[in-house]
Amino acid sequence: MRISELSRRSRVPVATIKYYLREGLVAPGTLTASTQAQYDETHLDRLRLVRALLGPGGLSIAQARAILGVIDDPQHDTFAALGAAQHAIAAAPPQEDTPRAASVLARAGWQIDPASTEPAQLEAALAGLDDAGFEIPDAVMTAYIRAAEQIAAAELAEAPEDRAAAIRYAVLGTVLTEPVILALRRLAHQQAAARRFGPASDA
Amino acid sequence: MRISELSRRSRVPVATIKYYLREGLVAPGTLTASTQAQYDETHLDRLRLVRALLGPGGLSIAQARAILGVIDDPQHDTFAALGAAQHAIAAAPPQEDTPRAASVLARAGWQIDPASTEPAQLEAALAGLDDAGFEIPDAVMTAYIRAAEQIAAAELAEAPEDRAAAIRYAVLGTVLTEPVILALRRLAHQQAAARRFGPASDA
Repeated sequence: MRISELSRRSRVPVATIKYYLREGLVAPGTLTASTQAQYDETHLDRLRLVRALLGPGGLSIAQARAILGVIDDPQHDTFAALGAAQHAIAAAPPQEDTPRAASVLARAGWQIDPASTEPAQLEAALAGLDDAGFEIPDAVMTAYIRAAEQIAAAELAEAPEDRAAAIRYAVLGTVLTEPVILALRRLAHQQAAARRFGPASDA
Repeated sequence: MRISELSRRSRVPVATIKYYLREGLVAPGTLTASTQAQYDETHLDRLRLVRALLGPGGLSIAQARAILGVIDDPQHDTFAALGAAQHAIAAAPPQEDTPRAASVLARAGWQIDPASTEPAQLEAALAGLDDAGFEIPDAVMTAYIRAAEQIAAAELAEAPEDRAAAIRYAVLGTVLTEPVILALRRLAHQQAAARRFGPASDA
């Protein structure tokens, strides 16, 4: 199909598709004339994926390019791909000194690669709470840890066997489901708070 | 204290403090001369809070101003404050038609105010997954729902009795703990994936 049809079917404007092509997020089409290229269903799929990563996924162009690189790279095994994907989208570089995160990890009983970026992310998040003078009660932190374990276990149990599918599942499942989890948590708040603080019910 | 000391103790540059004052995020000091104002510990606390909301909390100036307005307003009861805070930081306006969210909420068995913003947030997140051709397996969605319920229940159980403290706890607890929950989930992934996909261990 030509770029105009690709635009119509993906609902992404032609100028935006050209931008993605220039940025290397979408592979070039097959040239059929010096100024005309043909695209196929793989381009359409990729375009939808790019739009999801940049939109609801909230990634920058550079982060999306790195994530797509991980998905496309046949060299990675699944575990290495997960690590590479985490690095690509990490808000914080790895740090040597993460005392707040270390204390939470010790409580969770998790063995975490000290060279990974996640403890630094947790440390930054906890430091932000300290700055605001906000303390997470112990029972709440325990609930967060147990909830994270249950989510990760359910996600891992459903991971596809096929290597390429597993990588796609792991990378997209991490990035794109974050807004789902946060929205569900706010909904659960509303549900729970209505019971406790809401107008008196029949009960 | 003068603005220079406020800057030193908060580690926020003087120019940034002046910006927050102009934007109404921090209350003016007491004028002691035509060009000199005095600040106290309440200004220092507020400055730390603003920095946390704009930094780790990831809010815009407008969102932070709205959240601070909710915290400062003595008219709100706790439930109304929670709702107002959610509206202030919502990425999406309420929508009439949220079919994907409605299906998940029916499965969860939650009674949600249809005029609230949260179903629209969930709908947008789920639409993003559809765009990317990514489906959350049923068992995983169930794990998300149960995890959200457990988190909300633990947080509500620890809410302070005092009205002003409860509002601060609810509003800041929602915004500032989101990065903590997401970081813990990624750490739990690493912990679980190392077991399943990692290099062979002694076991």
